[in-house]
Amino acid sequence: MSIFNPVDHPHRRYNPLTDQWILVSPHRAKRPWQGQQESPALETLPSHDPDCFLCPGNTRVTGDVNPDYPDTYVFTNDFAALMPDTPAAPESEDPLMRCQGARGTSRVICFSPDHSKTLPQLSLEALEAVVKTWQEQSAELGKTYPWVQVFENKGAAMGCSNPHPHGQVWANSFLPNEAEREDRLQRDYLQQYGSPMLVDYVQRELADGSRTVVETQHWLAVVPYWAAWPFETLLLPKAPVLRLTDLTDDQRRDLALALKKLTSRYDNLFQCSFPYSMGWHGAPFTDGDHAHWQLHAHFYPPLLRSASVRKFMVGYEMLAETQRDLTAEQAAERLRAVSDIHYRDAE
Amino acid sequence: MSIFNPVDHPHRRYNPLTDQWILVSPHRAKRPWQGQQESPALETLPSHDPDCFLCPGNTRVTGDVNPDYPDTYVFTNDFAALMPDTPAAPESEDPLMRCQGARGTSRVICFSPDHSKTLPQLSLEALEAVVKTWQEQSAELGKTYPWVQVFENKGAAMGCSNPHPHGQVWANSFLPNEAEREDRLQRDYLQQYGSPMLVDYVQRELADGSRTVVETQHWLAVVPYWAAWPFETLLLPKAPVLRLTDLTDDQRRDLALALKKLTSRYDNLFQCSFPYSMGWHGAPFTDGDHAHWQLHAHFYPPLLRSASVRKFMVGYEMLAETQRDLTAEQAAERLRAVSDIHYRDAE
Ligand SMILES: O=P(O)(O)O[C@H]1O[C@H](CO)[C@@H](O)[C@H](O)[C@H]1O
Ligand SMILES: O=P(O)(O)O[C@H]1O[C@H](CO)[C@@H](O)[C@H](O)[C@H]1O
Repeated sequence: MSIFNPVDHPHRRYNPLTDQWILVSPHRAKRPWQGQQESPALETLPSHDPDCFLCPGNTRVTGDVNPDYPDTYVFTNDFAALMPDTPAAPESEDPLMRCQGARGTSRVICFSPDHSKTLPQLSLEALEAVVKTWQEQSAELGKTYPWVQVFENKGAAMGCSNPHPHGQVWANSFLPNEAEREDRLQRDYLQQYGSPMLVDYVQRELADGSRTVVETQHWLAVVPYWAAWPFETLLLPKAPVLRLTDLTDDQRRDLALALKKLTSRYDNLFQCSFPYSMGWHGAPFTDGDHAHWQLHAHFYPPLLRSASVRKFMVGYEMLAETQRDLTAEQAAERLRAVSDIHYRDAE
Repeated sequence: MSIFNPVDHPHRRYNPLTDQWILVSPHRAKRPWQGQQESPALETLPSHDPDCFLCPGNTRVTGDVNPDYPDTYVFTNDFAALMPDTPAAPESEDPLMRCQGARGTSRVICFSPDHSKTLPQLSLEALEAVVKTWQEQSAELGKTYPWVQVFENKGAAMGCSNPHPHGQVWANSFLPNEAEREDRLQRDYLQQYGSPMLVDYVQRELADGSRTVVETQHWLAVVPYWAAWPFETLLLPKAPVLRLTDLTDDQRRDLALALKKLTSRYDNLFQCSFPYSMGWHGAPFTDGDHAHWQLHAHFYPPLLRSASVRKFMVGYEMLAETQRDLTAEQAAERLRAVSDIHYRDAE
């Protein structure tokens, strides 16, 4: 029998943040694809679209008119999944039909008045304004809610119904599944090893380098050892930081740069507007000790082979275990091999 | 403040099989949709397609020629995600970079020689042959592997690259995430309540009826109380059964009928070939006591509003918690409201 080689041989890797395994089948990237093709985003959009409900000056379905905003603009989602005043659900102890009340709010965050731009195409100043908005929303909603989920769905493949650059923030009266899990697993790790899990992890990745995609003065983006999506990344501050609201001015300024470089590399990989869902996880806005937490963003992009061929997390993945077709190190290498200047800026 | 009403008010429901909560936002089904449209499957396919690598008599990419099979046909996937002879990975105790060996196999199961058919369009005899094949594969692979995952990805929206009716079976040298979780949670339930979780659950649903979609002599299909996907169902034998291989002849014959009715209702809902991933979970093929297990199939269909508008599990769902736009009871009611005779048979 030959010697194990992670580039040729299927194996499993463990995600310590979620206590899940991922099946890595690197040899499988060679199979032909005859299935669904994604439609890459239109290459040229106008700076203002009169039919877009996010552009400045336009009227939304509610009749509200968007102001003539200069950088970012936040409003409550016209079809919010959560409401601040839902009556309390009767708590039930039935183990097979447990129900719980859920309150909260969802807001839309326009990243820029310019309909034609995406994050990597914004200036560093404009990107810093986005980060500031994320911080302000977190600070405000964190006063009322234990969990504030900042995220962006980008591209039709990720369920985004409007190309205008925007993200969302959903506040929750409860710790959602992923938050509860990361909270628990980071707490256990600190207890067992004496330092925060992701602070340790940053050190390991800085020393190794094989999964690094972007490094700036204060930030590191890696394809995590346990990545599920083909080009998934984890973006972390190098120093310990609990929440978005705790960033220093320097860290914030530098985050704009890290975001620009990371999203430019994504777009450059297949020369398209790279779809993804991304979002921030930081310590919950609850009382108690949060020393086990380290702020981080997850980027989950679906594309696998080209602008039009994605990875489907279906069948085996839904019923048994996430499976990927290239190693984390191979993915990082490919993202490092492209420029961190956006291909359309270089045109 | 008004009184809580699950049809109007957001709430969370608990999935006891996976220890996950689901956010239910029933009022949200009203929002308009301007995003990606799915392409429903072509309505008319030939019974034999000379370019299909699953049709009888055709040559596959490997040069192998498919036999002239009369009902089902099984072969090893030409691009299997797992191999029976992978060398053992070095076990590592590094808590941040844990790796594990993974062996197994993946096989393709053609459900019928007829390229143009899907499960609901097969005769009861042909469907019983499919069930028999699932049983034979489970029995054979269960001799070597602790986990045998039988599943079907149907439709381009679920990553299926060939409309020829087929499923897959992947055997694993390990218990994949979902299997490990269901095993653990069912075990805990039996310990705490003295009877198997899903055997109790069947009784509850039989008594209630509001989530029932199909009931036959031996089988029950419900939209589970904790459904994540809009029209997700759970298909269970009414009596305790550990594995597919333990079905009586009567239960098997009746399963063909339950499958035909359930998949016909699915197709009838939006008058299209309803995409889904489905698969079977039963007791692992390991030593020890499995009294906590109850055999079941999960159906995870992505469509939400029509043949072309699906639910996207993105953003908030990936980063925080699964969210759905209608209650399980509303979904069941809609599936009950359509016929269990396939719309194309009725033509
Ligand atoms: O093997 P197939 O059908 O080509 O591939 C499909 O099913 C597999 C198992 O669920 C998934 O890993 C793939 O992402 C999906 O496209
Ligand atoms: O609110 P949007 O952008 O219309 O909707 C999108 O994001 C939401 C939050 O991730 C998801 O629940 C929806 O399935 C998705 O289509």
